[in-house]
Amino acid sequence: MRALKPEDITQSVIQSFADTPDPRLREIMVSLVRHLHAFAQEVKLTEAEWFAGIDFLTRCGHITDDKRQEFILLSDTLGLSMLTVALNQNKPAGCTEATVFGPFHVDGAPQVERGGDVAQGARGTPCLVRGRVLGLKGEPIAGALLDVWQSDEEGLYDVQRPDLGHAQARAVVQADEHGRFDFRSIVAVPYAIPHDGPVGQMLKATARHPWRPAHLHFMVQAPGYETLITHVFRADSAYLDSDAVFGVRPSLVCDWRQQDDGSYLLEFDFVLNPQAA
Amino acid sequence: MRALKPEDITQSVIQSFADTPDPRLREIMVSLVRHLHAFAQEVKLTEAEWFAGIDFLTRCGHITDDKRQEFILLSDTLGLSMLTVALNQNKPAGCTEATVFGPFHVDGAPQVERGGDVAQGARGTPCLVRGRVLGLKGEPIAGALLDVWQSDEEGLYDVQRPDLGHAQARAVVQADEHGRFDFRSIVAVPYAIPHDGPVGQMLKATARHPWRPAHLHFMVQAPGYETLITHVFRADSAYLDSDAVFGVRPSLVCDWRQQDDGSYLLEFDFVLNPQAA
Repeated sequence: MRALKPEDITQSVIQSFADTPDPRLREIMVSLVRHLHAFAQEVKLTEAEWFAGIDFLTRCGHITDDKRQEFILLSDTLGLSMLTVALNQNKPAGCTEATVFGPFHVDGAPQVERGGDVAQGARGTPCLVRGRVLGLKGEPIAGALLDVWQSDEEGLYDVQRPDLGHAQARAVVQADEHGRFDFRSIVAVPYAIPHDGPVGQMLKATARHPWRPAHLHFMVQAPGYETLITHVFRADSAYLDSDAVFGVRPSLVCDWRQQDDGSYLLEFDFVLNPQAA
Repeated sequence: MRALKPEDITQSVIQSFADTPDPRLREIMVSLVRHLHAFAQEVKLTEAEWFAGIDFLTRCGHITDDKRQEFILLSDTLGLSMLTVALNQNKPAGCTEATVFGPFHVDGAPQVERGGDVAQGARGTPCLVRGRVLGLKGEPIAGALLDVWQSDEEGLYDVQRPDLGHAQARAVVQADEHGRFDFRSIVAVPYAIPHDGPVGQMLKATARHPWRPAHLHFMVQAPGYETLITHVFRADSAYLDSDAVFGVRPSLVCDWRQQDDGSYLLEFDFVLNPQAA
């Protein structure tokens, strides 16, 4: 422990985790320290840069509250969130792919009946959304629950409007006995992730933009199946090739078809993976 | 950017930093992303573990204020602080080694005259501290300023006593024209770093203790010389071989000699590195 060389310091820290009772926690801590130290050594981190990192994390912590999650934004914009999703997808071909959860989901959204209005006053061009929840053989999954959430035409989620006082463009809908769901909402538009904080400063300093392509969030749950967290993206959206959070998967990009009356129709079927027995 | 495999996601994120104007920032971000992703991929990070990490950082941020710095504690206990210090030491042999800054330094500590009392009521066994500030050829550095700070006999720094209202065991002292300094304080004792927060939970979960061996902090500054941030450790202290923050360097361990009256005497000379021309 009376370490002298950088390599000796790293070895001392790794050794300090030797008695960790949980082998998985030990594996994670040792790998984390090895990669963290390799990073610092590779760039020969200066003390001023180290302090800038401490200050950055401190500001992320202080801007984070029950409505704003800067650490998830940071993970999203560094691609760690999407990487974690990808590392945990071992699903058979044919299942709907997952993507990032994002920081705007809220537990306990209001339940909306079939055909009902999810927008609840959120401004935007009307959009009808319908589809089915299916198993791998095309069998309907009766009664599946779909959490849906999206931003309004100004690119804001309801939780970003502190004076709103009720859920907008956010609901739980339920598939019927044939696995079918449909609801009314508004058409999704591209929006900028919150960039008035430390993560926004990082994006600006690295000449990156904060925009996400237009998408609608889904979390689909049914007994006996793995929960699916995903988006459906608009094929005609800007930023599909430069999503600030790296969430686009080609299989999730879909035509949202404009109707004669100017409104939109989105049709999308979800295929869930059965839970391991 | 419409990435599919984990490797493609990592490549997309690295690519997103291509236009960073500052080449040093680009180098740091690319290296950080590469190592962060390599860590996640190596341990095959699960989504629950990812969320535990987000939650851990959030709690670090929320416990951090102007008196408590959990991110520095985290960096210290993961050895990143000491590694950064070591990476930035390119000093000739003979210079006093640096060690971690720690989270308890305060700018603007009261100035104490030569021979004066730094303790200011902090409880502990009296200790006289004296020595010289020198250049590499043994030349005295007249008027060098020494920030000194330490915990009291209960292992607490003054800033950890919210009701105190004044500085204790913390001062700025100045070397005379011969580079000599001396002041009265209390003898350092081992203490536990703050472990009632997320970092303490990490230490507990990994069966590590939160203790640091007895030491006195110094920051030594003089025009024309590199600022030295270091400690002097007690040779008879517990935890020299398991410092919770990996800060011990053999050259900084020194006999603090007990005198006939029970008080202690610490004698230590600091050798500063001249600033590059």
